[in-house]
Amino acid sequence: MPVRETVEIGLNRFARRGYDLDEVSIVPSRRTRDVDDVSTAWQIDAFRFEIPLVTSASDAVVDPATAIAVGEAGGLGVLNAEGLWTRYDDPAPVYRRIREASADGAPPVALLQEVYAEPVKTDLITARVKELRDSGVTSAVRVSPQHTQQLAPAVLAAGVDLLVIQGTIVSAEHVTTSGDALNLKEFIADLDVPVVVGGAADYQTALHLMRTGAAGVIVGVGADSWSTGDAVMGVRVPLASAIADAAAARRDYLDETGGRYVHVIANGRIETSGAVARALACGADAVQLGEPLRRATQAPAGGVWWDSVAAHPRLPRGGASPAVAPAGTLQEVLFGPARSADGRTNLFGALARTMAKTGYRDLKEFQRVDLVIGG
Amino acid sequence: MPVRETVEIGLNRFARRGYDLDEVSIVPSRRTRDVDDVSTAWQIDAFRFEIPLVTSASDAVVDPATAIAVGEAGGLGVLNAEGLWTRYDDPAPVYRRIREASADGAPPVALLQEVYAEPVKTDLITARVKELRDSGVTSAVRVSPQHTQQLAPAVLAAGVDLLVIQGTIVSAEHVTTSGDALNLKEFIADLDVPVVVGGAADYQTALHLMRTGAAGVIVGVGADSWSTGDAVMGVRVPLASAIADAAAARRDYLDETGGRYVHVIANGRIETSGAVARALACGADAVQLGEPLRRATQAPAGGVWWDSVAAHPRLPRGGASPAVAPAGTLQEVLFGPARSADGRTNLFGALARTMAKTGYRDLKEFQRVDLVIGG
Amino acid sequence: MPVRETVEIGLNRFARRGYDLDEVSIVPSRRTRDVDDVSTAWQIDAFRFEIPLVTSASDAVVDPATAIAVGEAGGLGVLNAEGLWTRYDDPAPVYRRIREASADGAPPVALLQEVYAEPVKTDLITARVKELRDSGVTSAVRVSPQHTQQLAPAVLAAGVDLLVIQGTIVSAEHVTTSGDALNLKEFIADLDVPVVVGGAADYQTALHLMRTGAAGVIVGVGADSWSTGDAVMGVRVPLASAIADAAAARRDYLDETGGRYVHVIANGRIETSGAVARALACGADAVQLGEPLRRATQAPAGGVWWDSVAAHPRLPRGGASPAVAPAGTLQEVLFGPARSADGRTNLFGALARTMAKTGYRDLKEFQRVDLVIGG
Amino acid sequence: MPVRETVEIGLNRFARRGYDLDEVSIVPSRRTRDVDDVSTAWQIDAFRFEIPLVTSASDAVVDPATAIAVGEAGGLGVLNAEGLWTRYDDPAPVYRRIREASADGAPPVALLQEVYAEPVKTDLITARVKELRDSGVTSAVRVSPQHTQQLAPAVLAAGVDLLVIQGTIVSAEHVTTSGDALNLKEFIADLDVPVVVGGAADYQTALHLMRTGAAGVIVGVGADSWSTGDAVMGVRVPLASAIADAAAARRDYLDETGGRYVHVIANGRIETSGAVARALACGADAVQLGEPLRRATQAPAGGVWWDSVAAHPRLPRGGASPAVAPAGTLQEVLFGPARSADGRTNLFGALARTMAKTGYRDLKEFQRVDLVIGG
Repeated sequence: MPVRETVEIGLNRFARRGYDLDEVSIVPSRRTRDVDDVSTAWQIDAFRFEIPLVTSASDAVVDPATAIAVGEAGGLGVLNAEGLWTRYDDPAPVYRRIREASADGAPPVALLQEVYAEPVKTDLITARVKELRDSGVTSAVRVSPQHTQQLAPAVLAAGVDLLVIQGTIVSAEHVTTSGDALNLKEFIADLDVPVVVGGAADYQTALHLMRTGAAGVIVGVGADSWSTGDAVMGVRVPLASAIADAAAARRDYLDETGGRYVHVIANGRIETSGAVARALACGADAVQLGEPLRRATQAPAGGVWWDSVAAHPRLPRGGASPAVAPAGTLQEVLFGPARSADGRTNLFGALARTMAKTGYRDLKEFQRVDLVIGG
Repeated sequence: MPVRETVEIGLNRFARRGYDLDEVSIVPSRRTRDVDDVSTAWQIDAFRFEIPLVTSASDAVVDPATAIAVGEAGGLGVLNAEGLWTRYDDPAPVYRRIREASADGAPPVALLQEVYAEPVKTDLITARVKELRDSGVTSAVRVSPQHTQQLAPAVLAAGVDLLVIQGTIVSAEHVTTSGDALNLKEFIADLDVPVVVGGAADYQTALHLMRTGAAGVIVGVGADSWSTGDAVMGVRVPLASAIADAAAARRDYLDETGGRYVHVIANGRIETSGAVARALACGADAVQLGEPLRRATQAPAGGVWWDSVAAHPRLPRGGASPAVAPAGTLQEVLFGPARSADGRTNLFGALARTMAKTGYRDLKEFQRVDLVIGG
Repeated sequence: MPVRETVEIGLNRFARRGYDLDEVSIVPSRRTRDVDDVSTAWQIDAFRFEIPLVTSASDAVVDPATAIAVGEAGGLGVLNAEGLWTRYDDPAPVYRRIREASADGAPPVALLQEVYAEPVKTDLITARVKELRDSGVTSAVRVSPQHTQQLAPAVLAAGVDLLVIQGTIVSAEHVTTSGDALNLKEFIADLDVPVVVGGAADYQTALHLMRTGAAGVIVGVGADSWSTGDAVMGVRVPLASAIADAAAARRDYLDETGGRYVHVIANGRIETSGAVARALACGADAVQLGEPLRRATQAPAGGVWWDSVAAHPRLPRGGASPAVAPAGTLQEVLFGPARSADGRTNLFGALARTMAKTGYRDLKEFQRVDLVIGG
Repeated sequence: MPVRETVEIGLNRFARRGYDLDEVSIVPSRRTRDVDDVSTAWQIDAFRFEIPLVTSASDAVVDPATAIAVGEAGGLGVLNAEGLWTRYDDPAPVYRRIREASADGAPPVALLQEVYAEPVKTDLITARVKELRDSGVTSAVRVSPQHTQQLAPAVLAAGVDLLVIQGTIVSAEHVTTSGDALNLKEFIADLDVPVVVGGAADYQTALHLMRTGAAGVIVGVGADSWSTGDAVMGVRVPLASAIADAAAARRDYLDETGGRYVHVIANGRIETSGAVARALACGADAVQLGEPLRRATQAPAGGVWWDSVAAHPRLPRGGASPAVAPAGTLQEVLFGPARSADGRTNLFGALARTMAKTGYRDLKEFQRVDLVIGG
């Protein structure tokens, strides 16, 4: 197994040295290029996307309508099969309570815990997938590893295009004494649709997840600015390093299989167009974005953001954000024009410009751009 | 003697490079596990505990009642033999003054100096130990190295289960010209009860303390967020490194004795469940917690925190905190459910989850978990 | 190609380690010197300047009058051929709107976008250059690489002394499929006036720009305290390292040509006299200053600052600052006396003192002064 | 010449890596000691002091009365021969203006510039030195290198015990074209009293100053929390490294001379007892303190602090502080008891305790204490 730089924190106790996305920056190299000559497209299995955007499966930013709008804009919207839309026939009153609770700041975690205590209904899963499919865009739905065996059949039966099995921390080898653990490799082998799975945090886990037959692996353990996985669990994933390690696993797996390319999708505190560019520069094929989409006028929670882990009944690991005012339509958030300079609108126009100003034509080439630590 | 990474701060003047707990994080590895299959138990001498919790001997969070409650919850409560409960027959009015002084923020150090100026009474020591013993939980009492010869006889005569000899900075070799220094090794050899001793900050001191015959060594010099040992004395202990160094001393001493395992108990700014997990991941067998317990409804000072060193008559090295509102019962602080995501409740439920998500079954295995610096 | 220190951010993915100006400091060495014996002069082509100051081409601080005043004070003022003075016959009302918008803080980016939407007029370029020339100071005008072919003829025909071709990120090799890219080398070869070109961020780009025949290369990608190129594009240039790399390119190009010395002009968050000294100490021949000049009573925008990139119609990469009160005349900002100790007045008096206190007589020698990282 | 760790900031441009005092901490080692067995005494030439305290020559904290009080307390007070007491027959009204100006925060630099514009009078120097001598304490007066030739004769004629030649940045080799530079070596050789000279920032300068015949060398360029030498001149001295380098020069000079021990006096942002301990631990023989003394009830400026460089007529490099309320008498500031835990009272009681808790008996031994970087 390849080894990264290590530090001896104490006698004979070693730690790897990891770098976060905001420690790494892109350095322009000697060539520049016209922005019109740049392509930001990528493809996973038979599905092609004009922008390397996979949405977070957070109810705060993805309802069926926005999933479809993201698809029409060239990205991949992911609906949560364990979210408000499969717990409630009409989630509108729930969204309203959360928005009202945001009048005084961030809605309390206890409110999220309460509204997510409502059970998931299989028939609502069927209905939601159908709505996505009927729109004509590529449909994707997320289930948690814990509930995959119970809920995935309904998702698949409804004809979803892509299945996303995502938890905060996922491994290819879940050990249990209760005897009914999900065997990812067997499960995926039996499916007709491509599967994206994660999050993973290191080379080893990423490689093992690739070996399950997944078409994509999510790298990162889901941190956004409101995430508290560090304070609660002591777990932290320096994302630039995790992406680069997963990209190394991708190369090694490509070699080991003689040509299977598994996509690396970066997830975690990617909240500006600069962070999108850096994640791809470190080796990701696409980024999973949640928080940045809450600034679109279409965002179902009206500018409030929460990650699904914030609703955990016993151990929430993140909070909800206060609401922000919309910065523009989804189209403007993704493609501009930007009316402010904070990196929160024109996310993919900015990416194309960074690629152009560093001389790259497509995302695969751009993964080789020069990087600098510091500054 | 083993040597850690060193830095040349100036010509021929070297310093070790140390890492603090918040610089180190846990990295999930390729295996995950059910949280129900995880054990957080540990054992020191004949005493077994369900959670690796030793309380600080601070009057702010430990009175006889909470010491017993901690014991019943599976941890070890430590009462201070030189605290309010042995200086006052009824400390309630003292607690009331401190709480009232916290109405405008942190109670002043001068107030602590004043209330701790009252002398310690031996008969109160006897009574307090008896109260602990009568409850049936494992009883533990702390004396300072300076007053061990004077006070320990009363503590021991009252039948305590465990003796904790704890000062901010303790060594196995105290030099004095006055001729009456405590010889820890001889003192411990004469005792029937196991002794926990500390704090120590490096490999050498930890090893020498292990050689005194102690059953456990406290690592760290007592810093919490209100500690000012750095500003006052220039002393700072990067705790992750100190724990790992002490764990190396534990291994070497185990080898040197052919099997005596001395427990390493980490102490110092461990204030969230994430920090608990990191301290154990760096090699500790248990953590000594004070400040986190002030959020329990049972905390005797009503949410105010101070370490005993804050009451030093000539050179206080820390302050009292303002009061916080309770976050739940002691049971909820230790085992949840958490109603917020700040890592300050469900401390040991979070630990179990971290162990499960990184694939470990027990604490001894968990000391090998992957670590990362940065991010 | 020479290689700087590299870091492995993940398996087989490397980044250079870069240092920012504020990480580097000057260390006095064993000699000191009288400040009156120090010269801060430099010369580019036939033009000599008493201070190593090139202004930013920002309308916030440079109008024809201040360009002339800077020239009379011994520096080089650069007027923007694509700024307010070539878009408006009388820009006074535009400045007034911006100043009024600063009553409540920073003027919005959208206002800048609006006022810069007015087209550039060639006859105004002619008039502005004439005004500069008539004053007798060395005249310099900036065009962007994108509009060089369209606008430079008018600038040159009007008899400018120095042409500045400056964009945020410029390369010697711009690739386009539209067939009309500017070939810098051919363009410069045809000119009679010296050209300064940039910004560049690394050794390679700087070397290639030197090979175009430029008399000076601007290093840095234009960041000031209001710049957001990092958040928007993920691009960041640790300036101390970029300057040192460009100085290495200068040396190598000097050797390769047997004596052509191309000047390195540092640009980017140089906002105090200390930063001026550090930029020169790292190897720059001159500094390009914008923001610091807004404190002069003559600054045309009354203390508001913006870089031209803040007005980009689709992707602004910086904002405007709130207004500051003037700190003194341009003369006082450049040469003191200082009435405060914030490093924002007496910029070049301070430089001379730093040179004297470290024992150097002129700027070329001063590029060898001892540096320290840290503190 | 010995060389410290270096960093390549850019191609072929190197910087030393320096550490500041607050990056370095003291690590308790395996031995402890009774605080009563510790000595903090030091001796320079024939003069012995109970505490390693040399005062800053700042008018904010040293007037003749406090210089005498410091001497009586066991330290060395240094009066400024170019300060208010030699410019004004009665400085009381000037102090009053400064204190009144501090009612709204920090007094402005321009006020300091104004009151220091008054010329120095030689007869006042004579009178002030006489007052110090008459008290019986060791007397010390500071002159600047620029005015040594002009003012030192009066200081010496008045019978001062120790002469301090101190500027922000001093070298043993001042080059001038005006022909009248001070030759330190010749000047000191002619004197009967010991000379302390500085500030110096590196090994080389310290060694050369030792070779002038000085009895003590001040290390550091005078920075306190209000210093702006970094912003104004780009000069910064990581003090821990500078002290260690000067201590190496002391060792080398001791060897080169077969036994002349030149004292190293640390100066710069030493504002707490922890910083005092760290400066000595890095190798200093004594510390020069200014800002910490303003908390004494006797401080002549009533709690306002300024360094003499803040009054520079053209290039001030620091500001005045707002006033603080007194923390106690000079005796309490130096020896406690402390009524707060901020490291700003009981400065030398704390030092003795640090020495005791790390097992050292005297300052010379304590210079070998274990250090750690980080945390």
